[in-house]
Amino acid sequence: MNGAEAFIATIRQCGVEVCFANPGTSEMQLVGAIDKQDGMRAILGLFEGVVTGAADGYGRMADKPAVTLLHLGPGLANGLANLHNARRAGAPVINMVGDHATYHLHHDAPLTSDAAGVARPMSDWVRISRSERDLAQAGAEAFKLAQTYPGRVATVIVPADHAWSEGAAAVAPPSPPETPLAPPSVIADAAEALRAEPGAKCLYLGGRALREDALIQAGRIAAAVGARLVCETFPARLQRGAGRVAVERLPYFGEMAEAFLSGFGTIVFCGAEPPVSFFAYPGKPSWLSPADAKLVRLASMREDALAALSGLAEALDAPAQPAALQQPQTFPHGEGKLSVEDIGAALSDLTPERAIVSDESATSGLALYAMTAGAKPHDWLCLTGGAIGQGLPVAVGAAVACPDRKVIALQADGSAMYTNQALWTMAREQLDVVTILLNNGSYAILNIELMRVGVQNPGPKALSMLDLRRPEIDWAQMAQSMGVPAIRATTAEAFRQALADALAAKGPRLIEALL
Amino acid sequence: MNGAEAFIATIRQCGVEVCFANPGTSEMQLVGAIDKQDGMRAILGLFEGVVTGAADGYGRMADKPAVTLLHLGPGLANGLANLHNARRAGAPVINMVGDHATYHLHHDAPLTSDAAGVARPMSDWVRISRSERDLAQAGAEAFKLAQTYPGRVATVIVPADHAWSEGAAAVAPPSPPETPLAPPSVIADAAEALRAEPGAKCLYLGGRALREDALIQAGRIAAAVGARLVCETFPARLQRGAGRVAVERLPYFGEMAEAFLSGFGTIVFCGAEPPVSFFAYPGKPSWLSPADAKLVRLASMREDALAALSGLAEALDAPAQPAALQQPQTFPHGEGKLSVEDIGAALSDLTPERAIVSDESATSGLALYAMTAGAKPHDWLCLTGGAIGQGLPVAVGAAVACPDRKVIALQADGSAMYTNQALWTMAREQLDVVTILLNNGSYAILNIELMRVGVQNPGPKALSMLDLRRPEIDWAQMAQSMGVPAIRATTAEAFRQALADALAAKGPRLIEALL
Repeated sequence: MNGAEAFIATIRQCGVEVCFANPGTSEMQLVGAIDKQDGMRAILGLFEGVVTGAADGYGRMADKPAVTLLHLGPGLANGLANLHNARRAGAPVINMVGDHATYHLHHDAPLTSDAAGVARPMSDWVRISRSERDLAQAGAEAFKLAQTYPGRVATVIVPADHAWSEGAAAVAPPSPPETPLAPPSVIADAAEALRAEPGAKCLYLGGRALREDALIQAGRIAAAVGARLVCETFPARLQRGAGRVAVERLPYFGEMAEAFLSGFGTIVFCGAEPPVSFFAYPGKPSWLSPADAKLVRLASMREDALAALSGLAEALDAPAQPAALQQPQTFPHGEGKLSVEDIGAALSDLTPERAIVSDESATSGLALYAMTAGAKPHDWLCLTGGAIGQGLPVAVGAAVACPDRKVIALQADGSAMYTNQALWTMAREQLDVVTILLNNGSYAILNIELMRVGVQNPGPKALSMLDLRRPEIDWAQMAQSMGVPAIRATTAEAFRQALADALAAKGPRLIEALL
Repeated sequence: MNGAEAFIATIRQCGVEVCFANPGTSEMQLVGAIDKQDGMRAILGLFEGVVTGAADGYGRMADKPAVTLLHLGPGLANGLANLHNARRAGAPVINMVGDHATYHLHHDAPLTSDAAGVARPMSDWVRISRSERDLAQAGAEAFKLAQTYPGRVATVIVPADHAWSEGAAAVAPPSPPETPLAPPSVIADAAEALRAEPGAKCLYLGGRALREDALIQAGRIAAAVGARLVCETFPARLQRGAGRVAVERLPYFGEMAEAFLSGFGTIVFCGAEPPVSFFAYPGKPSWLSPADAKLVRLASMREDALAALSGLAEALDAPAQPAALQQPQTFPHGEGKLSVEDIGAALSDLTPERAIVSDESATSGLALYAMTAGAKPHDWLCLTGGAIGQGLPVAVGAAVACPDRKVIALQADGSAMYTNQALWTMAREQLDVVTILLNNGSYAILNIELMRVGVQNPGPKALSMLDLRRPEIDWAQMAQSMGVPAIRATTAEAFRQALADALAAKGPRLIEALL
């Protein structure tokens, strides 16, 4: 077999089942190899940001990597922003990036670039294949790296001649990577701090500590010592809803986050580092934890969160029954002109059990998050790295990973434009995704930030750079142009009906919520 | 003034008049500075690939840089592919990329990345500002670098605290960079080769050698020694049309290019390096020039093409009247189902004088190029670096640079999807761009390449990765969703009428040509 076939056979044997692809000429042997490989699904994205964002969403839900197929340095470059987000999410992703044949590179043909250099800033690991025989080995190493708890972004550069040359063979899947455990002494320190320190106590949770099993342990700890449970602002995947252990979410704006944390005398971190301000602002601090609080790192994002929380619960002799169980909530049905609260009330009522919510709703979405706390149990996936254009692709990947679950994409308009091509993939694959497009006609967050960084009296030129009107984008029309049935909703009643209809149907739908 | 104001004032004094922008929080002081700066136009793109591609198109037409405004490493990453194309075009571009405040970086906030590392693979020059006082100096240096003949991509990383800190001042514009001249000995060598060598002769032209003034000199040389004039396959800007000196275009596929060049005993290169195959293929050569030909490098892309060609014409005592003047052409009007030839015939007749054609028409466009050779004089801008998604953004930039000239974007469907957001900017700025969207429902080039690289009997999975149908994209509807008036044409007659109507109107139009 040729190198491409050996590579694809190897990662398939490792367990990879899905390739999100946007190939070019230099990847045609990889296309051919995927074509021949049973059990490897190929899903086309019409822009690489869709491809990498889908791999992120898939990885978060499947807890194993999909593989991307990208065309040379520029194709990879188009996918970098969502790889940045995937890396911040701790999602397992394997990228296979075609490159020119090794002997062709020095000719500096028009598409030549430093593909590994493009990869490095947004990859945890980059490996250039050394030969057609080495390619499969690179695939096995990439799989192992990607599976490093909770997940990493591994990129393999595949020169075309390694892909097409014969004489290669698949290699055996690697042994799974071991997940580091928090040392017993750290668990003892955390238990001691939570038991002994005066003042209010907080368990600050992120990464895998936000899965249901880990949250139950956190809830037991809360029951034992009265700690409040707080999660990072933008979790990769939070399991929440009625009956689950509830966590409070750290506010986005630094000064609000600082105020939120200011009352705590003890903060124990699990699956997350101490939070810092998302951006710097003149005269405002980056570090948000109180200077006089006792901070204990129970487990980093890369250490086993469930084991650490279980160990801590045992060390505290915590009761079996967790505290902080979320109660169902109900909200009055609104009437007339549509508001964000109307959307939140409808979502609280109608979100189906085991739904997956891809949240890139930005300013519009704070209320949606709060109002869905008591909905049926569901998974909530956030924009982890702040690079907008993640929400729709992550919804694609989540829907591919979990075809029996409904996906709801809460999507701000400005961010949606970045990777609007994701709608086409939803239509092609008939993915079960309901997109709620929150159309407020602006980069609303930036209008706030303009003031916060101290720009005084912005003129029309400044404001024009934050404004998505003139012309207004007709999102229902755009979705239809790519084959996704769509409807515009301007009233509370119409929105609720449209949401109920979309959730009852199977396949992609878009509801444009005009705010 | 603060650092941002000093930076913007400095590049404005250098002559920069346009900022293509997609800012975020960390760039708000730059937004504020642009707001206050007279004579600096701000144009919003809803995706960074639009921003950088527009800067490329602007640079090619204005022969001076616009400045981009990009949000941190991920925002820059989204613009890299079109910076790759700009670099290959030799277009002058300045990027200003916001970054976190210097003291904030080590906190590794979610949007933190190695912005300079992201910039390097697709920039000719990267400079991180060292202080608020240094920022203006960095801007002046970037301008000078960008103006290096024929143009370069210069990237300045702007930490937010340098932008917002007071105590900065604008600096004086730098002296213009000198353009290297080809040494007299090289001109003498080229003259000698063209005069003395036996066999067919070729002047192979690229870069600035494809401007009208340089082509006149090339035509004089052709008249003197009977050389054929050939241009690189994807010129950044070729001035052509009836009455101008005509050049033949090197074929795209390597084996055709090799055959094309095989008859030449002498090839003199000006503004371009000896051509190589765009991709490598098993068993096919990368190098395309005949092994036994005499190759003379008259001037590289970075040396003065007009001076070199003028010097060579003088050395050859060439006649004043150039050879190879293009004659007008006429084609019969087609009827019934629309073909590419119908589009070519209509363009040949209707392209207005001084039109600018942004050509990303891929497989559909070879005939369009050939059939417009005898149209009224116009500029033809190609996809220089092979990173698709350039055509519409370049059209945006060209229209901004030349508001009194009609821009025609010849755009393949697969490539158009990458940066479809450019349509919105056309609508917002009411740019005088007619987009002809060639909808063949596939990555047609890849169906050819699949065979060429030797993939046998591709199955449905492979073919699905090259297919843009299921669902078909309704481009007229998509354009309308972003505010661009659009129409679908399915017959020769309807297309010709639609083109005439669109060219007669002012402002953006899209014609979806269903092929």
